[in-house]
Amino acid sequence: MRIATRLTERLEIRHPIVLAPMAFTSGGILAKAVSDAGGLGLIGGGYGDETFLKTAFRDAGNTRVGAGFITWSLARNPALLDLVLDHHPAAVMLSFGDPAPFADAIGAAGSTLICQCQTLDHVRAALDCGAQIVVAQGGEAGGHGAIRGTLNFVPEVADHLAAHAPDTLLLAAGGIADGRGLAASLMLGADGVLVGTRFWAAAESLAPEGHRQAAIPAGGDDTVKTATVDIVRQKDWPKDFSIRVKRNAFTDRWDGNETGLSTAVEAEAARYQAALEAGDADNSAPICGEAIGLIRSVDPAAAIVEGMVADASACLGTRFVVQE
Amino acid sequence: MRIATRLTERLEIRHPIVLAPMAFTSGGILAKAVSDAGGLGLIGGGYGDETFLKTAFRDAGNTRVGAGFITWSLARNPALLDLVLDHHPAAVMLSFGDPAPFADAIGAAGSTLICQCQTLDHVRAALDCGAQIVVAQGGEAGGHGAIRGTLNFVPEVADHLAAHAPDTLLLAAGGIADGRGLAASLMLGADGVLVGTRFWAAAESLAPEGHRQAAIPAGGDDTVKTATVDIVRQKDWPKDFSIRVKRNAFTDRWDGNETGLSTAVEAEAARYQAALEAGDADNSAPICGEAIGLIRSVDPAAAIVEGMVADASACLGTRFVVQE
Repeated sequence: MRIATRLTERLEIRHPIVLAPMAFTSGGILAKAVSDAGGLGLIGGGYGDETFLKTAFRDAGNTRVGAGFITWSLARNPALLDLVLDHHPAAVMLSFGDPAPFADAIGAAGSTLICQCQTLDHVRAALDCGAQIVVAQGGEAGGHGAIRGTLNFVPEVADHLAAHAPDTLLLAAGGIADGRGLAASLMLGADGVLVGTRFWAAAESLAPEGHRQAAIPAGGDDTVKTATVDIVRQKDWPKDFSIRVKRNAFTDRWDGNETGLSTAVEAEAARYQAALEAGDADNSAPICGEAIGLIRSVDPAAAIVEGMVADASACLGTRFVVQE
Repeated sequence: MRIATRLTERLEIRHPIVLAPMAFTSGGILAKAVSDAGGLGLIGGGYGDETFLKTAFRDAGNTRVGAGFITWSLARNPALLDLVLDHHPAAVMLSFGDPAPFADAIGAAGSTLICQCQTLDHVRAALDCGAQIVVAQGGEAGGHGAIRGTLNFVPEVADHLAAHAPDTLLLAAGGIADGRGLAASLMLGADGVLVGTRFWAAAESLAPEGHRQAAIPAGGDDTVKTATVDIVRQKDWPKDFSIRVKRNAFTDRWDGNETGLSTAVEAEAARYQAALEAGDADNSAPICGEAIGLIRSVDPAAAIVEGMVADASACLGTRFVVQE
C-alpha cells in the first residue's frame, strides 16, 4: 500500500513524507533510512559545517537523499551549497532567510528547490525565485519557526498557490507526527508532509539519547518558545524566528531573564555545552515540537514511515459521508 | 448529503458543526440560523448580561439551541446559568475557568455539558466533572485562548479520551473555517468542529460591519495575540488566556507599551468604546482568528454550513491511497 500524490510523482518517491533537515539531528544515516523507507530524507546542513556534511553524504551512501540549510547562515559560507550540489541531491531545502541568492545554482544543478515558509510574504518570495515546492510551517513545530497555526496556514497557502502557482507543490509542517496528521494535511490541500519531531525521536537520529528519553514521556503542553536557547548557544537568529524546545530547568531558570543570561553568557555557554554533550535534558534543551505529545517510543525510521502510511490510509478510507 | 459522526448522533443534529458561543457576536439570530442549517447554534453568554441572554433566546424562537459562558465571569453571577437552563438549552459550553461548580446543575437540567480546553490539564478537569463533550481549542482561534496548535492538540486529546473516557466526544476548534478544516479535524480524531471566526463573518453575526469589512480582505498573518484589548476593555482575564484580534492602529500603538495603556486607561477606554460603537476597525479591535485568511465574503450561516459540508465531503471521498 502506498499514498500517491503529486509529490510522490514529482520526486519519484513512494510516500509523501519528507524528513525535515534538522540541524545536528538529520545525519546521513537517518536521511538514508527515510529514503529507503519510501520517503525522502533531507540531511540537516544546519548552520553549515563542512565535516558534518561530508560525513552525512558518505553515510547516506548510494541512497538518493537531499539536504537543507538555515539560509541566513548559509549566506555566510555559500561554498557549502556547492559541496552539497556536488553530491547530486534530490532536493535542497532553504529555510529562514532569503532564498534568492541560491535558487539559480540549485536549479542549474538539476536539483529541486524547496523553500520553507512561515508567512504569506515568505511564500511570495519563494515563488519569485522559482521554488518548486513550498513548505507551510506552523508554529507548533520544534526548532525554529514563527507563529501561524499549521491547520489554517496550510489551506491559506494552498489557496495562494492555486491562484498564482498551481504547479508548485505544498508540504505541511509543524505538529505532524502520525498518520492522522498526514491524512489531515492532505485534506488541507497539502501534497505531502515535512516531519521533524517524529524523526528526531527515531532510532537513527543524532539527537542526544538523554534528550529523547526526557521528551517522549512529556506532552505537547511541555514545550516552550524561548529566546534563551539561542542566547546561550550564541546563535544570532533574525528576530522573526524563535525556537521551540522542551521546557526544562534551564528554560525555567532563564526565561524572562534574558538580560541576565546575556550578561552571564560566557559561563552559561560552557555549562550548556557540557550538559548537551552529556545528553542532560535538564540543563540543555531537547529541540522538539508540540508533537512530542503524540510520540510514545523510539522507533526505526522505517517503522515510523510504515506506521504513518498505514494509519493515514485507514483514516482516508471513505468515512463519515452519508448520501441521502 | 450529510456528514454523520458520533456527535451528530448524540446531539441529534444533521452536521457535526457547532457555532462557537462568541461574546457580543453569537446572538439568537445567528444561533438559530446555524441550528436551522443542521448544525448546533450556541448563544454567546459571554461576560454575562441578562438582557442580552433574554433577547437571544427570544430571537432563537422555537429552534433548538444552546449557550456558552466565560466560566470565570459566570462565577461572579451564577444565577445566569439558571436563566439559561430555564430555556432548556441543547447544550451548555463552559470555557476559561473551573467548570466544576456548574456541572451538576447542567446535568440535572438534562442539558449536555461541553467544556472547552486549551491544555491536557483542562481536559482532565473537564472529565472529572463529567463533561460529555470536550473542545480542544488551538491558539490560532480568534478571541481568547491559549497557545497549542490545533493540528497536534486535537489528536493528543483524542488519545487521552480513548484511554480514559472513550464515550466523551471531541470537537476541534481554532482555525477551522471551511470544508478542508472540517475534513482535517475528522482525520485527527475529532467528532466535529466548533467554528467561531467563519460565523463571526456571517450575515447574521452581531460583529460590527466595519470590523468584518476590515478583516475579510486581510490574511491570517494580520492577526495578533495582545494584552492591550483586555486592558482597554478593563476585562480582568486570568493570565493563562490571551485574546487574538486583527492587528490594527490600536494594537500597533499600544502593543509593547501595556504600562502606558494602563496609565491612560480611562481616556483610552472611552475612545475605544466610541470606536467600537462606530465599527471603527482601526481604533477598536476586530475579534477574529487566523482563519480570516480563509474567508472571502460575508455569507448567510446556512450557506456557510452547506459549503463546509459539501467541500468536506469532496475531501473525504476516497483519495490518494493506492493499493498495490
